[in-house]
Amino acid sequence: MDDAATRSRRGRGGGGAARRAERTTMRIEAARFITRNIPDIDMLSAEALDVIEHNAETVLEEIGVVFAEQPEALRRWKEAGADVQGDRVHIPRGLARKLCATAPSQFTQHARNPERNVDIGGRNLVFAPVYGPPFVRDAAGGRRYATMADFRNFVKLGYMSTYVHHSGGTLCEPTDIAVNKRHLDMLEAHMTLSDKPFMGSVTEPSRAADSVEMAKLLFGADFVDANTVMTSLININSPLTFDAVMMGALEEYARNNQAAIVSPFIVGGAMAPVSVAGTLAQVLAEVMTGVAYSQLIRPGAPVIFGCFVTSIDMNSGAPTFGTPEASQISYGAGQLARRMGLPYRSGGGFTGSKLPDAQAAYETANTLNMALYAGVNFMLHACGWLEGGLVSSYEKFVMDADQLGLYHKLAAGIDMSEEAQAMDAIREVGPGGHYLGCAHTQANFKTAFWRTELFDYKPFETWEEEGARDTQALASDRVAKLLARYEAPPLDEGIRDSLRDYVERRQAEMPDQFG
Amino acid sequence: MDDAATRSRRGRGGGGAARRAERTTMRIEAARFITRNIPDIDMLSAEALDVIEHNAETVLEEIGVVFAEQPEALRRWKEAGADVQGDRVHIPRGLARKLCATAPSQFTQHARNPERNVDIGGRNLVFAPVYGPPFVRDAAGGRRYATMADFRNFVKLGYMSTYVHHSGGTLCEPTDIAVNKRHLDMLEAHMTLSDKPFMGSVTEPSRAADSVEMAKLLFGADFVDANTVMTSLININSPLTFDAVMMGALEEYARNNQAAIVSPFIVGGAMAPVSVAGTLAQVLAEVMTGVAYSQLIRPGAPVIFGCFVTSIDMNSGAPTFGTPEASQISYGAGQLARRMGLPYRSGGGFTGSKLPDAQAAYETANTLNMALYAGVNFMLHACGWLEGGLVSSYEKFVMDADQLGLYHKLAAGIDMSEEAQAMDAIREVGPGGHYLGCAHTQANFKTAFWRTELFDYKPFETWEEEGARDTQALASDRVAKLLARYEAPPLDEGIRDSLRDYVERRQAEMPDQFG
Repeated sequence: MDDAATRSRRGRGGGGAARRAERTTMRIEAARFITRNIPDIDMLSAEALDVIEHNAETVLEEIGVVFAEQPEALRRWKEAGADVQGDRVHIPRGLARKLCATAPSQFTQHARNPERNVDIGGRNLVFAPVYGPPFVRDAAGGRRYATMADFRNFVKLGYMSTYVHHSGGTLCEPTDIAVNKRHLDMLEAHMTLSDKPFMGSVTEPSRAADSVEMAKLLFGADFVDANTVMTSLININSPLTFDAVMMGALEEYARNNQAAIVSPFIVGGAMAPVSVAGTLAQVLAEVMTGVAYSQLIRPGAPVIFGCFVTSIDMNSGAPTFGTPEASQISYGAGQLARRMGLPYRSGGGFTGSKLPDAQAAYETANTLNMALYAGVNFMLHACGWLEGGLVSSYEKFVMDADQLGLYHKLAAGIDMSEEAQAMDAIREVGPGGHYLGCAHTQANFKTAFWRTELFDYKPFETWEEEGARDTQALASDRVAKLLARYEAPPLDEGIRDSLRDYVERRQAEMPDQFG
Repeated sequence: MDDAATRSRRGRGGGGAARRAERTTMRIEAARFITRNIPDIDMLSAEALDVIEHNAETVLEEIGVVFAEQPEALRRWKEAGADVQGDRVHIPRGLARKLCATAPSQFTQHARNPERNVDIGGRNLVFAPVYGPPFVRDAAGGRRYATMADFRNFVKLGYMSTYVHHSGGTLCEPTDIAVNKRHLDMLEAHMTLSDKPFMGSVTEPSRAADSVEMAKLLFGADFVDANTVMTSLININSPLTFDAVMMGALEEYARNNQAAIVSPFIVGGAMAPVSVAGTLAQVLAEVMTGVAYSQLIRPGAPVIFGCFVTSIDMNSGAPTFGTPEASQISYGAGQLARRMGLPYRSGGGFTGSKLPDAQAAYETANTLNMALYAGVNFMLHACGWLEGGLVSSYEKFVMDADQLGLYHKLAAGIDMSEEAQAMDAIREVGPGGHYLGCAHTQANFKTAFWRTELFDYKPFETWEEEGARDTQALASDRVAKLLARYEAPPLDEGIRDSLRDYVERRQAEMPDQFG
């Protein structure tokens, strides 16, 4: 019974509980993660997938992968049956795939509020916000370096967004905090300002260890030992290179049964071939290696087949988003992940645009639509991403978060119940009539159509009188309103204090490092 | 040999040909229509489709459809075996579907430049611009009533847009020309300012007849008799009502073997039930009736299964676009069309936004992405649609037209050739290398990635120095550039004169009617 929910409930029974309950009467609506009741798109035939899988095995056996400066990892690979030459690991055909077989096809990531738990894998789709930008932008303040205050704002926005299931990780880089200390503040923010699931730090194995320690304070050590409470992002240095920092973090998480996304980071034509089929073979080789390695650390550790991929503008070298080639790779990788029985991470509200304008929205919608049909199970960067991931945008965060709602409806599939067939309504209205007042419409209109919380549906004249505002202006308003209405979800004060103590202690132990 | 292409070639051999050839050295790139090499999404099971088809037959038999003020149509229906009571036609189960069977599953619409011919049906997808708005908007001039000058500009933009396959019809309503005369100017503009295929007038049977007459001047009477040279839009007055004007135009076109889109016009919850399954039954009943009627006029006449559908904001009554329910209906209708073996029309760059902003782009991209996988064969409104179809937007026209390019790439499917598998490239580059300079990249980079002609891919600093422009500003520039560069495609001067004469004569015969 030593889990967060129980303790939280005990906490609410204590001293400040009544006051707190009153303050939190504003009910935060949170949609359950999506469970798809619709088909995936299979862009590749079974024969084409066989070819790619064969090519990936050839890459692993002939070319191999590099685990630089990791004697222990090389030892593990050798013991598992790989041919290790220097820091290059040649993995015999079939070995990596065999090792991957112990990874679960689906797992639950627990949140401190059990209603916010997410099931990752299977037919499910979980949305998490943007990850990693050093800059933020809003209409009032323009583009600037992100700070911890910005970070906290984004945690709050994610908490208040109905269709954002996950609090995410590095929502922006808090550049006003030392590099070696900011992970502590970020984790504390996720843990105290939201009750949704979150990600751990990966920038140093010691920071992954801090993440686990703080999770134990929040959830209880026994609970963390038995359950997955973090999903963290392990990038692969494509092509075919696994660096010591990321692998160290992966080891820390796998050892503790915490989930990791094993994710090639690919700008097509730079870190992978310019062709879709070639990129897919490399992606599969890389993911199989990372996932297999996680299972060498702890068989059964939860891992996600990741695929971050963009195309490149061959004129300027800029990464490009919402493009057909990136979509094709993501569709193909989804099929490969399903054949391995692994949860799949791809997509996001990607754009190269500098502003939350039409370009941003076209590119984002192209990627979000793809992700729904590519069978994505975990979507990082689902909202707030701008300028190729350099910027976390306040306005785009709420714009994307609003759009995420419609995928819930689309994924549910088409209701074929008697009520939905509406034959009585068609009879009642008849030729030339209208349905606005009929019994079926009256009974169903409240849930019949998804509705934006943001976009403009007003008559032209009203819209013009109110200032002829564009989407960015409407979004600025919504950001301000959400942040003004924000109230923290209840949390046991003992836990809150223990987290604060941990952060203070660890930060005091280290001198500041910047850059 | 009396077809437009031959005559056009003869024309180029004549007097002003050398001069004209010199003027037209600017080569207009025009992509072939899309042929999908990717799967459709089947949102509905075969059992669900059976239910909807059964319900549609029930609607036709029990409730029936209205053909108001059309004694001749009622006579035709009676003769075909329907039970006609007053102006209500009850169609026995199975009859409409049987009549539809003579409609072709695919047909070619000829353009005066044979390279611009489009094949409508099968795995193909043809893009045509926005249709019908009384207003236009651009950044410089704001929103205003459309004129014939605007109309000509949109014909020119369509002609110059690589990925717009079709010149369309009423690109905007030229409100400065009398209602009963403007169809003549519009047709003349399509025929002389573009060499892409176009649509005929439907607002009066006599205007449909004018369209056929002018097409005969352009293509030759024999050619028009033997070939389809127009695809026109016949809207159904949903629910279940077929008005005399639209049916009169349909008769005119079917009689002349010219194509018609038979299209319910549905704002869900107003002209059809609020539910997807109910709307689909009504849509199918309406389309089967219209298509069956076209086959009563001339068996084998080309027709398209149309479905224009939007959802409604139940708070304000405004139609809403890019929504999940509209997508679900379009997916389902696509499956129903395929089961009937009919070409399918749906989708478009739909939005309710007043501006070409992020809302416009999200909503548009949602609909365009849907259309690709819903199996749409003919897409009206593929570019330029704004404000729920009240406005033709100059900027959005080029924004959407640019996006249409990526669907060509996506629809082509994934290249699995040896070259695309790129194993030599992966070997050459190896772990930790990069692909920018490798032989495979050098050989393939020019065609590897779709590239925008419009969006911003520049480094942040360059973009800022150049004025930090948003997509609308970039689009304004592109519109100005395209219109400045426009040159008319060559056309035999005899044909041009005969079209002018026809328009002048017909306009002189009638007093002006407005409104």
